[in-house]
Amino acid sequence: VSTKYRTVGVLGGMGPAATADFLDQIRRETRALTDQEHVPVIARSVPQIPDRTAYLVGDGADPFPGLAHGAKKLAADDEVAFLAIPCNTAHHWHERLSRAIDKPILHIVKETIATIDRRPGDGPIGILATDGTQKADVYGKWLREAGIPSRVPAVAGQQSVMAGIAAVKAGDLETGRALLKGQAEELLQGGCSRVIMGCTEIPIALNDVAEIRGRCVDATRALARAVVHESGAVLRTAR
Amino acid sequence: VSTKYRTVGVLGGMGPAATADFLDQIRRETRALTDQEHVPVIARSVPQIPDRTAYLVGDGADPFPGLAHGAKKLAADDEVAFLAIPCNTAHHWHERLSRAIDKPILHIVKETIATIDRRPGDGPIGILATDGTQKADVYGKWLREAGIPSRVPAVAGQQSVMAGIAAVKAGDLETGRALLKGQAEELLQGGCSRVIMGCTEIPIALNDVAEIRGRCVDATRALARAVVHESGAVLRTAR
Repeated sequence: VSTKYRTVGVLGGMGPAATADFLDQIRRETRALTDQEHVPVIARSVPQIPDRTAYLVGDGADPFPGLAHGAKKLAADDEVAFLAIPCNTAHHWHERLSRAIDKPILHIVKETIATIDRRPGDGPIGILATDGTQKADVYGKWLREAGIPSRVPAVAGQQSVMAGIAAVKAGDLETGRALLKGQAEELLQGGCSRVIMGCTEIPIALNDVAEIRGRCVDATRALARAVVHESGAVLRTAR
Repeated sequence: VSTKYRTVGVLGGMGPAATADFLDQIRRETRALTDQEHVPVIARSVPQIPDRTAYLVGDGADPFPGLAHGAKKLAADDEVAFLAIPCNTAHHWHERLSRAIDKPILHIVKETIATIDRRPGDGPIGILATDGTQKADVYGKWLREAGIPSRVPAVAGQQSVMAGIAAVKAGDLETGRALLKGQAEELLQGGCSRVIMGCTEIPIALNDVAEIRGRCVDATRALARAVVHESGAVLRTAR
């Protein structure tokens, strides 16, 4: 099948709901009237990769070999032009994975930060993410580099975030939504001008919550838009 | 990454929304509390495969070479144990594709028909599908073999079905829902006991419509459940 668009290799399964959401966001962010105008995607949604956070907080198997195996298989496919990983925590290994293959991997954190429009007097950016993402400073590092102050939930709040993410992974969207909405609101009421939904399970729960939607930054969507752009397909709205 | 579940190869992209919906249905039909309990999936969502219906009604490029290329690449992956195709019309080529590779391909029509519970006095089964699926008799053949009478929309109704499917493909869910709901209702009011949503774009539009949901058979869901079963993961509800 010949295609004028470049094919993205999606290293997914972390978790499977986030990967399905990501594929659908790529589609929704594309301006297309027919199937054929959409981005070609080759996706691995192999959720047996060990839990990223468990490893980063010091009590689980190393996910890197599984991540590298998947990235190498995608990169070895001559149809794949570049990769994307719809898992924020996995970006702790972005640099190491990039060195392991000869095709570029988009970076969810850089793409997300690039979408944030800062005005004078804006408060810090709140970060909702896994313990692994927070401990590995996946967002903090790039936000500091961009000169943007950031804030994370306090210990009890972060426990609610993890419980919310676990609920979404277990298919209990209602519990997940309540817990995650509470923490997003706490960061916003505490002075944050925006909150990054920095775990791909979070937008699944919060994208329908009208009250906070406009002030939450969807990292999955930012990565999906970067994929459409990089593929050469037409974005639904300008960048 | 070692997994105790068998990996499914998904030949998708027909269209991309249907493939994202299919991956999400596989996840929703699986009983799992963690990522690692989910079905491993390797998916090709390459929507540049020529339109199936255009070819079957005699005015478009042959999609078979593209389908065969995708099936062969999936089958050549040593991780893939079996294939599934979330596109009803593409099942016109199921037998020919099965002969082209050495791994089994689940059959969406057989899986869908197997879920239909018939009682004495039940009316015929209505079929909502593309012109291509209807012309190639993809459902009719298997329903006759099962001894189940079937009915398709009249000419004007079938035009509405095609317009509804095109609207879903173009991202206009509201128009798609109105057109497809009207045709489902017409078949049900005309005496059909159930209506098969026999195009993977249709459940995307109709699964939220409470009035007809219980009487519509979701072919995508039937195939997703067959994938979970075949993979060895645990179904959310018994078969």
